[in-house]
Amino acid sequence: MIALFTDFGHDGLYVGQLHAVISTALPEISIVDLCHTIPPHDIRAAAYLLPAYTRYLSPASVIVCVVDPGVGSERPHAVCKADGRWYIGPDDGLFDVLGQHVHSFRKYHFQWPGEVSDSFHARDIYTPAACLLAESGGSDVLQGQPVETDKQRFSADLNEVIYFDYFGNAITGLRGTTIKTEGKITINSVTINHARVFSDVPAGDCFWYENANGLVEIATNQSGARDSLGLQLGDSFSVD
Amino acid sequence: MIALFTDFGHDGLYVGQLHAVISTALPEISIVDLCHTIPPHDIRAAAYLLPAYTRYLSPASVIVCVVDPGVGSERPHAVCKADGRWYIGPDDGLFDVLGQHVHSFRKYHFQWPGEVSDSFHARDIYTPAACLLAESGGSDVLQGQPVETDKQRFSADLNEVIYFDYFGNAITGLRGTTIKTEGKITINSVTINHARVFSDVPAGDCFWYENANGLVEIATNQSGARDSLGLQLGDSFSVD
Amino acid sequence: MIALFTDFGHDGLYVGQLHAVISTALPEISIVDLCHTIPPHDIRAAAYLLPAYTRYLSPASVIVCVVDPGVGSERPHAVCKADGRWYIGPDDGLFDVLGQHVHSFRKYHFQWPGEVSDSFHARDIYTPAACLLAESGGSDVLQGQPVETDKQRFSADLNEVIYFDYFGNAITGLRGTTIKTEGKITINSVTINHARVFSDVPAGDCFWYENANGLVEIATNQSGARDSLGLQLGDSFSVD
Repeated sequence: MIALFTDFGHDGLYVGQLHAVISTALPEISIVDLCHTIPPHDIRAAAYLLPAYTRYLSPASVIVCVVDPGVGSERPHAVCKADGRWYIGPDDGLFDVLGQHVHSFRKYHFQWPGEVSDSFHARDIYTPAACLLAESGGSDVLQGQPVETDKQRFSADLNEVIYFDYFGNAITGLRGTTIKTEGKITINSVTINHARVFSDVPAGDCFWYENANGLVEIATNQSGARDSLGLQLGDSFSVD
Repeated sequence: MIALFTDFGHDGLYVGQLHAVISTALPEISIVDLCHTIPPHDIRAAAYLLPAYTRYLSPASVIVCVVDPGVGSERPHAVCKADGRWYIGPDDGLFDVLGQHVHSFRKYHFQWPGEVSDSFHARDIYTPAACLLAESGGSDVLQGQPVETDKQRFSADLNEVIYFDYFGNAITGLRGTTIKTEGKITINSVTINHARVFSDVPAGDCFWYENANGLVEIATNQSGARDSLGLQLGDSFSVD
Repeated sequence: MIALFTDFGHDGLYVGQLHAVISTALPEISIVDLCHTIPPHDIRAAAYLLPAYTRYLSPASVIVCVVDPGVGSERPHAVCKADGRWYIGPDDGLFDVLGQHVHSFRKYHFQWPGEVSDSFHARDIYTPAACLLAESGGSDVLQGQPVETDKQRFSADLNEVIYFDYFGNAITGLRGTTIKTEGKITINSVTINHARVFSDVPAGDCFWYENANGLVEIATNQSGARDSLGLQLGDSFSVD
């Protein structure tokens, strides 16, 4: 399985080109569009969502991760092995949080020998490289060099809103395991209690919970926390 | 074939997880995203769209249907056999209209023995159950109990706007077979005549027609009825 | 591979029906959603995007192209062979620019014998016809008649904004090979220089470049040219 995780917008001109590259190289493989609506250029949001939303994938998965405002510049190309899964993309911070959340983590930098466009490395480098990886079952095929990961752009957890889902609820960069259910979250001067699920509170009430992917989510039953609390991406909160 | 029909938003974080579950269990099966933009939490809209937009699917299809604001509460899990196709999802009214439109209909409630999250039963119950169904070809594998369907939350037809498409045209809950083409629809104080297709009226003119999925649709040629008539979801209309 | 290129909106009720038709007829074939967000009814935008965004597809590809405001009227059904690839859709101008950009081009009109709806020929004619084409490997199966292509609705290049991507950058109908990199573009009274890639200019600066699909694109690093320059679809520009 090759999974895709980008800020390209699912519904445009770019995702289809990645599918075409994969289907031409590996007609039988499953392609999974995990997410294409990372907020544009938001490496940080992607870094926190990546470990949470890929942790349930099977070990043989190869995940193409691209949030790449620096495309065409000299940032290195990385392939990581994390708890058995392969991640591939630009080494611009995307894999920092992943490296801190998983049990085993190794990162390699690789060169790409083929002809590539200046501005679409997802199509011309990362996706074809992912196809090679998926076919060979190992990163040797990319002849990458191991990289130390001692300095990180991003810490393991982040007390901020990083994503709004289709319902308007606010996903944060904080793992649910870091708060007890007695904990309270204060954001935009509103203090919010825990609930287990949406249906445990009346329609229109706010609560926080550990979502099904392990992150703290601030939600409003049947109306969306973004609108009911006036939230924006990047809003920070305190935990008591 | 497994088809998906939800209010998750195609372009977010949830649909990809359903695809991953299916592709891991049944790597060869076709997955069809029938609709992921049911208006959030709108069980009624989903109930009227479901029979119309699945009636052309082949009999072997399994359709995962999830509009589930009560996730985590005690609503039952249902599997239905309707005109040979399988439908699976929460029994919260989603299957009421389907049951009235098809020739043959049976509904079962089932328990799910596996470990599940509190808030994502589409991923943890309905999709894995659909994979079992698709693989076995019968619902015996779910050991469901037959359920009587004598009381219904929703009637067979609904004189309301339930969905806007990408062009801004208004799909209603009324079957085209219930109106003659001489019939007139009055909505927002405007009276609208029938036309066969868009190109039968000048650009900018309103008309109603039976759409290619059998529902009455209120349309404006090349500009969308939502904007040209100021329509909203839930607007009701009369038929004369 | 069957690729889809429409103005239906990826995230609605129509694309899934095309997938269902294909998966039923050819369960093993790859389906690629190249684009479903052509601006509604905008045949011209589609005509210029089509050759650019399909030129990298493998020769065996069949591309279903539907922007079809005249559905139900008497416009002919076309199948084209262009540089080895097959294109199929309504002959309403969609293939005019393609015919001028490729090395080899032949167009045929065909009749469809089956029962069809009045308003969804993408599902009822073009997609099933594409399945026949993909399976047989040749258009003989459609028994089409060759058509001369001497008059064209659209010229080979267009100095206008035809599409905004998810980042808000503006794709034009002008091929990059028509301008030298010293060339300047003037749009909305702003004059814009060339840059190779986004990271070659500071965040917030505008530039133009030949995008990875060969079209001139007007871009703003990390904020999108639509918003920073107040652009709209159809805005024209001069090149000096």
